[in-house]
Amino acid sequence: MNTRVLEIRKGILNKNDEIARGLRGRLQHAGVLTVNLVSSPGAGKTALLQRTLRVLREQGLHAAALVGDLATDNDARRLAESGVPVKQINTDGRCHLEAQMVSDHLADWDLGALDYLFIENVGNLVCPSSYDLGEDVRVVLLSVTEGEDKPLKYPNIFNSADIAIITKMDIAEACEFDLETASANIQSVRPGMQILTTSSKSGVGMNDWLSCLAHERQSRTLTTADA
Amino acid sequence: MNTRVLEIRKGILNKNDEIARGLRGRLQHAGVLTVNLVSSPGAGKTALLQRTLRVLREQGLHAAALVGDLATDNDARRLAESGVPVKQINTDGRCHLEAQMVSDHLADWDLGALDYLFIENVGNLVCPSSYDLGEDVRVVLLSVTEGEDKPLKYPNIFNSADIAIITKMDIAEACEFDLETASANIQSVRPGMQILTTSSKSGVGMNDWLSCLAHERQSRTLTTADA
Repeated sequence: MNTRVLEIRKGILNKNDEIARGLRGRLQHAGVLTVNLVSSPGAGKTALLQRTLRVLREQGLHAAALVGDLATDNDARRLAESGVPVKQINTDGRCHLEAQMVSDHLADWDLGALDYLFIENVGNLVCPSSYDLGEDVRVVLLSVTEGEDKPLKYPNIFNSADIAIITKMDIAEACEFDLETASANIQSVRPGMQILTTSSKSGVGMNDWLSCLAHERQSRTLTTADA
Repeated sequence: MNTRVLEIRKGILNKNDEIARGLRGRLQHAGVLTVNLVSSPGAGKTALLQRTLRVLREQGLHAAALVGDLATDNDARRLAESGVPVKQINTDGRCHLEAQMVSDHLADWDLGALDYLFIENVGNLVCPSSYDLGEDVRVVLLSVTEGEDKPLKYPNIFNSADIAIITKMDIAEACEFDLETASANIQSVRPGMQILTTSSKSGVGMNDWLSCLAHERQSRTLTTADA
């Protein structure tokens, strides 16, 4: 890439970082825990969210979701079945979400009424890693069908995430998935990263994931209260 | 995206198109059929190529492969086991291959001795769609684990491809994959596209894929001879 393009791209990133910083401040001030979900296409972000939103609602918690895609509003329609507020962000061919898109789509929501905001990024293991969306927690999903070496081959996205979830555990055996190797690869790219295993179909691991969310929310609320 | 960035990006694409055009000429003149494989991370490009390269070699045909990744040379090492020439292109964090990278890595190969050149792109359903690599045939892979709606959600890459391969058919049932819906979605984005179904594990569909390659090669050779 030539120097001029790099400089301009850096400029875009800095602009994005600025917007993300402001957005993070607004969301934290409103007491919302914001979670940015990133993964390959088809790793199961929407399925995980469907189940998560339903359970949170049953627990009397208030969640909402923004869903990024190049085209279609399929995912927003799937998530809306959970009964929580959902909006589709159509990126019009762009390969990632940016903080401004998130900010624009939050404009008419009452953030004070929310406990959780989930942002489902465009399915892409590369580009979303460079764009801060003002989230508190970035979660990277890796499905058992993708192979154990993906953390080594896409290190930036694993390195920029806070939590890894290995999804579709119900078909792990059919895929001859080696959990130990996958976990070791994640740890080699991002030492100490928390790794959860789930199946949105069977429900395995959902309790751990929900506890993890509750813990993150509690620790942020305490930190904000202290500040 | 602001106008200046768009203009520069367009400039990069035009530059890439120019290089791709030159490259295509060189490869076709040498009688090589060049195939660019694109897909999500983990859709099975490397597994398909492993099996393809082995069979072509057994048939006495000469194939070679270039493999793009952000990091690691895992895939090149896997493919090299087939005994054909393989080179890894490390994109150093970039989300797609470009024609110049392909051209650079071909520099010391005798193209005249090759029948097939396979280029395994970076696993990404978005960005590689915009970069012509000088290929004759672009093949998009969709694994049964990714969901039937991916063609609708990532239309550009399906639209820019010539052939679609639905992979991992051995676990289609475990994934409750609906082939009819997936095929209809592909056809709605790219009417008339040839769709193959394969399993690199069981070997299902490999004969169709190899016939398809032979047919493509034959028709290009005839066209070139006519010209």
